[in-house]
Amino acid sequence: MSEIDVLGIGNAIVDIIAKTDDETLIKLDLPKGHMQLISSQDADRLYDGMGPATEISGGSAANTCAGIGAFGGSAGFIGVVQEDQFGKVFAHDLNAIGVKFDTPFAGGQTPTARCLVFVTPDGERTMNTYLGACVELGAEDIDEAQVKAAKVTYLEGYLFDPPRAKEAFYKAAEIAKANGRRVALSLSDAFCVDRHRDDFVKFIKSNVDVLFANEEEIKALFEVDSFSTAADLIRHEVELAALTQGPKGSMIIHGNITAAAPAFPVDQVVDTTGAGDLYAAGFLSGLTQGASLEVCGSLGALAASEIISHIGARPEADLVQLAKQHELM
Amino acid sequence: MSEIDVLGIGNAIVDIIAKTDDETLIKLDLPKGHMQLISSQDADRLYDGMGPATEISGGSAANTCAGIGAFGGSAGFIGVVQEDQFGKVFAHDLNAIGVKFDTPFAGGQTPTARCLVFVTPDGERTMNTYLGACVELGAEDIDEAQVKAAKVTYLEGYLFDPPRAKEAFYKAAEIAKANGRRVALSLSDAFCVDRHRDDFVKFIKSNVDVLFANEEEIKALFEVDSFSTAADLIRHEVELAALTQGPKGSMIIHGNITAAAPAFPVDQVVDTTGAGDLYAAGFLSGLTQGASLEVCGSLGALAASEIISHIGARPEADLVQLAKQHELM
Repeated sequence: MSEIDVLGIGNAIVDIIAKTDDETLIKLDLPKGHMQLISSQDADRLYDGMGPATEISGGSAANTCAGIGAFGGSAGFIGVVQEDQFGKVFAHDLNAIGVKFDTPFAGGQTPTARCLVFVTPDGERTMNTYLGACVELGAEDIDEAQVKAAKVTYLEGYLFDPPRAKEAFYKAAEIAKANGRRVALSLSDAFCVDRHRDDFVKFIKSNVDVLFANEEEIKALFEVDSFSTAADLIRHEVELAALTQGPKGSMIIHGNITAAAPAFPVDQVVDTTGAGDLYAAGFLSGLTQGASLEVCGSLGALAASEIISHIGARPEADLVQLAKQHELM
Repeated sequence: MSEIDVLGIGNAIVDIIAKTDDETLIKLDLPKGHMQLISSQDADRLYDGMGPATEISGGSAANTCAGIGAFGGSAGFIGVVQEDQFGKVFAHDLNAIGVKFDTPFAGGQTPTARCLVFVTPDGERTMNTYLGACVELGAEDIDEAQVKAAKVTYLEGYLFDPPRAKEAFYKAAEIAKANGRRVALSLSDAFCVDRHRDDFVKFIKSNVDVLFANEEEIKALFEVDSFSTAADLIRHEVELAALTQGPKGSMIIHGNITAAAPAFPVDQVVDTTGAGDLYAAGFLSGLTQGASLEVCGSLGALAASEIISHIGARPEADLVQLAKQHELM
């Protein structure tokens, strides 16, 4: 199997995205700016309360893999969908951008996962995920040869939610480590960190080389109120940490080195869905090509700025061209 | 049943929209700027050749009904979907914008219709429709009370394609005429006019009060090369004709009167999908509220300008607010 840049493992989800207002979030009792897990019944109920929507493939690690593809890199993805219309959409959209995705469809009838994304006028997204077929992901879906072939195996923190996924990512991390490959993790969401803090800490200590987190998530991990305290604490836990701070840019921590990358200005923040995922895509695109930490951070910022300028978490622009315009490639 | 403004009858379709280039259209042998009908097998083959896409509810008359709803009017829609994920998306998106849609799901397993829309950098869309469950639409789906209750029954010309739909729209037209209601028709597509010219001519003569067509379609109807010749010919066939000419605006013909409505300027034409459908929505919103022909045309032009500024054929902006800004409501 020929070498690839990034192998993503994550929840395979189609996003259903609608514009809304803050009153609707309150009325529907949704945690603004976060991701919550919902049942199939709640998904139906919330969908009834949602305006006209757009369906776009999503899933955190899958978005990152699509970003790697859009940057001209090579990526593969492991995740489980059902053989239904959304499942075919999800598979198509990854394959169409050059990401290898061939995890077998789930058995049974559980539908492909969907995430109801409510976007408020400030561009903030509030996510409600019915995991559906994602809960079928298990260790048996991890192909040893594929993990060995990947410079980086990238896991989304959301994988701590479906119970069997943990076996899958422990298996993947062990194969990667045994073969001298890097393991990257995104903390995904502060609520998700709260749900699984001990598991996160243990997994990071033993397996993670590159950690992605935003301010809220890294503070939640260490249960501290200060970002700089959290940043100092993570310095000793991982080889490399990329900590995003929204419009303030990102801080990259590597041993004693602290590098900064500013955010790219955007005319209008339309929808922040996927901002972290695409930051990781840009960062890992740089990292796997041997770029400096500053350039890695800038590629991340650039991809994030593209994704928040439009609805949906999959890139619409040609990221290679964009990177060249900014002399980052 | 309380009175509504518009009852739309049409193919119930989910659009799968991807950006592409002209080379891809040539490679895939697609008729640029037109709609062609494709088989299920061709839909799979073309989808394989398509880039990452976005799924948005579509269907010509359904888009018009969604536009009526976005203008604050009352609308209903009759069309057939399967009880699958796309069918539920289609139903949700109409209901969520206030359009009454309760046609029973199709029996059997035929999936909801989908249209693969390829959008080139000039904003032109090339459509490939697999009709799926749409072919189930028949006279039994027409509810007499609903037609009686509608000021205008609006039919899309594409309904001449699925064989049993003809019975449905003849039945609807007869109920409307018998109850002193107006029947409106959109010619939909010049290729569609070519496929069913005699049927179109006969139906327009006997049933249509308000006709919508673009330059190409009205010329195709009369098989003439001159737009002004075609415009003069339609003058004697229908009470009211609204003929759109893209960026040149539209011409509205009513007896001896010819009114003009300019197009609204747009910064960038992103995707022309739904331009004609939303023109009809604006026009009929005005007509059912007793506006002048010029205002009807301007409301059409305004809605068309909104729809071509973004991907997809369903309005994203608040059309009432937009109309008020332009002192059209």
